Amino acid sequence: MTLIYHTPLSPQTQSGLGIDPPAPLAMADQVRFSELDVLNHVNNAVYMHWFERLRIRYTQDWGISRYMGTGKDPRIVIRSGEIHYRQEMRMDEDYVVTCACTAFRTTSFSLSQRLWSGGTLRATFECVLVLLQSDGSGRFPIPQDVRNRFMEIDGATLMS
Amino acid sequence: MTLIYHTPLSPQTQSGLGIDPPAPLAMADQVRFSELDVLNHVNNAVYMHWFERLRIRYTQDWGISRYMGTGKDPRIVIRSGEIHYRQEMRMDEDYVVTCACTAFRTTSFSLSQRLWSGGTLRATFECVLVLLQSDGSGRFPIPQDVRNRFMEIDGATLMS
Amino acid sequence: MTLIYHTPLSPQTQSGLGIDPPAPLAMADQVRFSELDVLNHVNNAVYMHWFERLRIRYTQDWGISRYMGTGKDPRIVIRSGEIHYRQEMRMDEDYVVTCACTAFRTTSFSLSQRLWSGGTLRATFECVLVLLQSDGSGRFPIPQDVRNRFMEIDGATLMS
Amino acid sequence: MTLIYHTPLSPQTQSGLGIDPPAPLAMADQVRFSELDVLNHVNNAVYMHWFERLRIRYTQDWGISRYMGTGKDPRIVIRSGEIHYRQEMRMDEDYVVTCACTAFRTTSFSLSQRLWSGGTLRATFECVLVLLQSDGSGRFPIPQDVRNRFMEIDGATLMS
Repeated sequence: MTLIYHTPLSPQTQSGLGIDPPAPLAMADQVRFSELDVLNHVNNAVYMHWFERLRIRYTQDWGISRYMGTGKDPRIVIRSGEIHYRQEMRMDEDYVVTCACTAFRTTSFSLSQRLWSGGTLRATFECVLVLLQSDGSGRFPIPQDVRNRFMEIDGATLMS
Repeated sequence: MTLIYHTPLSPQTQSGLGIDPPAPLAMADQVRFSELDVLNHVNNAVYMHWFERLRIRYTQDWGISRYMGTGKDPRIVIRSGEIHYRQEMRMDEDYVVTCACTAFRTTSFSLSQRLWSGGTLRATFECVLVLLQSDGSGRFPIPQDVRNRFMEIDGATLMS
Repeated sequence: MTLIYHTPLSPQTQSGLGIDPPAPLAMADQVRFSELDVLNHVNNAVYMHWFERLRIRYTQDWGISRYMGTGKDPRIVIRSGEIHYRQEMRMDEDYVVTCACTAFRTTSFSLSQRLWSGGTLRATFECVLVLLQSDGSGRFPIPQDVRNRFMEIDGATLMS
Repeated sequence: MTLIYHTPLSPQTQSGLGIDPPAPLAMADQVRFSELDVLNHVNNAVYMHWFERLRIRYTQDWGISRYMGTGKDPRIVIRSGEIHYRQEMRMDEDYVVTCACTAFRTTSFSLSQRLWSGGTLRATFECVLVLLQSDGSGRFPIPQDVRNRFMEIDGATLMS
């Protein structure tokens, strides 16, 4: 099976790659030379770039933000995150990063992200994001259609 | 007061910079243009590079590893970490990253890292590191003199 | 037409993408968020990472080096390079980087690299690489089969 | 002598570091772990980040641009550059990057940048920059006081 990069992967494709359970958003890429450190492994900080990249795509596709600088979109700020490294990554390995909302409140939400390669879970990242007014003046409520998407597509829970 | 970069800062210097309490290891640097993202803030993943950089210096100065590839030093692997972002960083800001061991076991230890700028805590990172044999064949016990350093200099606790 | 990333593109595919003339090696990728600077363009230094990445693949595929650290392969050192920026790159744009050897001597060779996007030439990079013994003790002659490849596939010229 | 980082170095300090001739702008920094590649040398593309960083400081200090997004400053675009790598850089090495204008026209100018470490020239970068209107609508003439600075401080030549 040829891996399709930079494109949302269907649940079937994810299952075929050993990603269990499939996530609402999953995209593939490949390790680059510049991401390796002197020990020939992918540098730990690089994982954060990978997770971030898919988060941005997620917030765009879910209609939360477009990073267009129009002043109408909320600013999305990462408040905290917890990363677990399970197995190292090496040169030229293909990998899939996933993203799913697990819970949300009025102006914040939790994402669960995973890194898979060769059918093995390599790392996980759980983080909390907050929506702010574009001028930073205060909180920005999650729009209703985004809340619906969180619940219907991601199966997320509304926290009181 | 002129800030000294890339050099361990004394407890007095740290206190003068509003770093409270002072840490066993603290070094200063300055935000670079290439670390900013399109919103003119330091990119979230860049913090991980900053914390990593001081961790490496810490493991060298505390005698844990020298990253010399001699085959005698243990490999140091980060197992997990929890990051909290408290306030954004901007172009040309000076900052200080700190590192302290809070607890250790036979082959693993916990570090508490902080990012300070302008007398304000900007981010924290708590992580767990594991020592492995240089060939990856198994765990590597923390040498006694390193354990002593953890306790005497960092005030770390031995966890059973 | 669906663009295939991270995979050598055939001359026909290259032509279909407006890459004229097709190059002996060409691969596609997509701009990442972390590659943008505060002006929302791809940072100038990032182009060098893109060119480097394909050069490494080129030296592997052409049999010059495998970056395996076996001690048998030559070290490949970039001696000099000339970059021309023709048009900026933006978020999520697909691009193709190409590589071709234009000339070679006993222990050095010249590569011509191009960056294409949307059928437009965005940047060019011409560089000179030198082969060294893996221990850095002296020059390493380009193997005959590599010289043959340079001439037959790339149409490179032997410089006296 | 203690090296002062992130601060313009006087001609006397530059001479003391073996930088000959001294440049109008020179600043020191130190190699980071994250800048090394798998061969334990500073990655070739990283040099471009170092040169870029001092160029930005140079264009700010010389009054050409402030990267403040006010819409009044010109956009500064790098048109082309030629890099020469002379000697590799390693972990923790101190280095000094310099910048000087060598020539200018109505809307463009040439910079000569050098990288020094341990009294040895490690790399050079000669580049041509162009000033554009902030909306990209056309060229932006170099202000007279900047032209004066180019001539009086840098000893640059006006090209016709």
